Amino acid sequence: MKKVKHLQCIRCGKTYPADPGTYTCTECGAKAGILDVVYDYDYIAKNYSKEYFANNKEYSIWRYEPFLPTDPAGPKPKLRVGWSPLYKTDRLAEIIGLETLYMKDDGQNPTASLKDRASAVAVAKAAEEKAPLIACSSTGNAASSLAGNAASLGIKTCIFVPGRAPAGKVAQLRIFGANVISVQGSYSDAFKLSAAAIEKYGWYNRNAAINPYLVEGKKTVTIEVCEQLNWEVPDWVVFSVGDGCTIAGAWKGFVDLYKAGFINKLPKVAGVQAEGCAPITKAFHSNQPLEPAEENTLADSIAVGVPRNGEKALRAVRQSGGTYINVSDEEILAAMRLLGNTSGIFGEPAGVAGLAGLKKLVAEGIIDKKETVVCAVTGNGLKDVNNAIKAAGEPIKVSPDVNELWDVLENIPGLLS
Amino acid sequence: MKKVKHLQCIRCGKTYPADPGTYTCTECGAKAGILDVVYDYDYIAKNYSKEYFANNKEYSIWRYEPFLPTDPAGPKPKLRVGWSPLYKTDRLAEIIGLETLYMKDDGQNPTASLKDRASAVAVAKAAEEKAPLIACSSTGNAASSLAGNAASLGIKTCIFVPGRAPAGKVAQLRIFGANVISVQGSYSDAFKLSAAAIEKYGWYNRNAAINPYLVEGKKTVTIEVCEQLNWEVPDWVVFSVGDGCTIAGAWKGFVDLYKAGFINKLPKVAGVQAEGCAPITKAFHSNQPLEPAEENTLADSIAVGVPRNGEKALRAVRQSGGTYINVSDEEILAAMRLLGNTSGIFGEPAGVAGLAGLKKLVAEGIIDKKETVVCAVTGNGLKDVNNAIKAAGEPIKVSPDVNELWDVLENIPGLLS
Repeated sequence: MKKVKHLQCIRCGKTYPADPGTYTCTECGAKAGILDVVYDYDYIAKNYSKEYFANNKEYSIWRYEPFLPTDPAGPKPKLRVGWSPLYKTDRLAEIIGLETLYMKDDGQNPTASLKDRASAVAVAKAAEEKAPLIACSSTGNAASSLAGNAASLGIKTCIFVPGRAPAGKVAQLRIFGANVISVQGSYSDAFKLSAAAIEKYGWYNRNAAINPYLVEGKKTVTIEVCEQLNWEVPDWVVFSVGDGCTIAGAWKGFVDLYKAGFINKLPKVAGVQAEGCAPITKAFHSNQPLEPAEENTLADSIAVGVPRNGEKALRAVRQSGGTYINVSDEEILAAMRLLGNTSGIFGEPAGVAGLAGLKKLVAEGIIDKKETVVCAVTGNGLKDVNNAIKAAGEPIKVSPDVNELWDVLENIPGLLS
Repeated sequence: MKKVKHLQCIRCGKTYPADPGTYTCTECGAKAGILDVVYDYDYIAKNYSKEYFANNKEYSIWRYEPFLPTDPAGPKPKLRVGWSPLYKTDRLAEIIGLETLYMKDDGQNPTASLKDRASAVAVAKAAEEKAPLIACSSTGNAASSLAGNAASLGIKTCIFVPGRAPAGKVAQLRIFGANVISVQGSYSDAFKLSAAAIEKYGWYNRNAAINPYLVEGKKTVTIEVCEQLNWEVPDWVVFSVGDGCTIAGAWKGFVDLYKAGFINKLPKVAGVQAEGCAPITKAFHSNQPLEPAEENTLADSIAVGVPRNGEKALRAVRQSGGTYINVSDEEILAAMRLLGNTSGIFGEPAGVAGLAGLKKLVAEGIIDKKETVVCAVTGNGLKDVNNAIKAAGEPIKVSPDVNELWDVLENIPGLLS
């Protein structure tokens, strides 16, 4: 492919041809030697323009194939991934003290999370290589997105989830026909077992940090944001952070557009972690290496004690001039209510952690009220109904009796006024 | 509005101006006198063309505003409703014995069901009338779509659900800030209480059969199908049926396009009900009036013992030359697995009842294998996780121990072959 130059180790800079089976840098090892996909930006700039995109009727991530490491003639999963809505949320903006806020609702993807972007690219690459089975470990969303996208092409999957994965995500996996191994331990335990099985059986590896192509799928979220804003770049983008792959992808989207001349500035990137599991925030502010953390948060998708892409996540935020912040579980639940009440968007806990962090960043004056902000909702709240009820409470129960009803209605504050 | 001529009673033919507060025919009464919106099709044909739509970049139901009863300059809810994906599902087609099958995945709407189409129009009409509060009763999806769309515009809601409404739908309502009354009884009980409260307090009424504008929102699903098929009309469309509003809307979409000259034939329409609650199928095949039925099915969204729009639903299928068929709960659960496994689409039980029925209609020779079929998935499976697990089973549990893992993997049929 003319558009892809090579893969390059983010630690030592060594380059590798973009061939099947190349996952990590052989010099730096599987943990540290994560590879970046390097494109021929001159080639892209010469062959594609803003007008090309304006006339493109493919409203999915594949409209950005000029920026993707896939063969344009190769097989693609059938699900419509990407081109999620970008909402200008004025009432929400006012409440948290901003003039201009956009929410990017990536819970609107086919399997209801941003991870569909990564999995669609992984499945396309696996299909190019004619892989018979794809494996991964995941806190849930990567898993269900892989299972759904693979099912649409009839490719088998074997998926490792930690025992705590919420019911909605496990149900998706089973309906999509995945072989699901529920590891009775932490996400790290699930990751280790998946790595052992992938090595033993030679399966295609969708583990996000290891496979260099997944960040490429994720970056479509910010490429899309730029096009939806008519190639204007916001001052800040805010993402929740677990493994670190999503925020790294978000940053790469801007960098690729900048290098190919589609945008002329870069935003600041803010990463938000849960207080109960914040190894990247800690490393960022202490300037120390990443240390394993416990996984104590109800935001399961970002409960990652040993982030597999922590280095890319740190580098992205540092390069952008942004920052990291933590939020409590209570702040996350409050953000679920706030987002739903003001905007009709239902995010899962990890999906709204970004908004909870944004609220604090504005309150602390780190983000100014005049700055334009885009905040991502990374997954749909339907995936984790128990925590939604925890956030918003049970409904009022009434017998089929009008007199009981009048009593109840007259006691709901604000209803009849 | 030039495009809307008037409202017309489907029973006696009496016409009414399309004014605020007009819900049903005063002569035939609230139960029987359901009103249809009648457009000026000459006006539409003169002012809009296929080319107009080809150049329209509004990818939501509002692209079809020429066919909608709303004021183009009026307020609209902010959520992106409609333009859901239409998938050509070849592997699924082959398994059930068809050559050409499309699945319309309406679970991809913002609150994850087709009902968003109706609620978006209801909220737009309520906002035109400056209504401070919208009320409805619902088995769940109409409720959550109303709550989400209303929240996006800051309009209050009061919503009546039967006690059996699944957790996912109730969680959505609460997160969207709705006042939720859980009626400890049947859907009919919830409907009656909502009607009493709407009358007493003068609230805007979103109850689907009563409010003539909701079917108009629903019809966008088939207008979209026609445009997505490049204005080719399928031989059959298949929908699951509860209250009868959705199938009536699906038919109206084709009729409106036909009358305005956008298509030159009409499809046959098949309605699918659950065996445990099939009053419309019974009335259709017996040629007798509708009789109340019990509500014995796990497909909660179509468990409607007293359909509020049964007459329109019967009329639509009869006019089209189609038919009604019933499916068992087991057939519904099997359809959930089949759809997920072959296509990566996750539908709720009522959402896949159409597919279960289609499978039977093909097996019985009522639909020929050479006929082109579009089948709707009306809601996302994440809304009802318990039934998904019932359909697809629990995952395999493993301790964090590789030796236990090897034993497990080697015993999964087909995994390592």
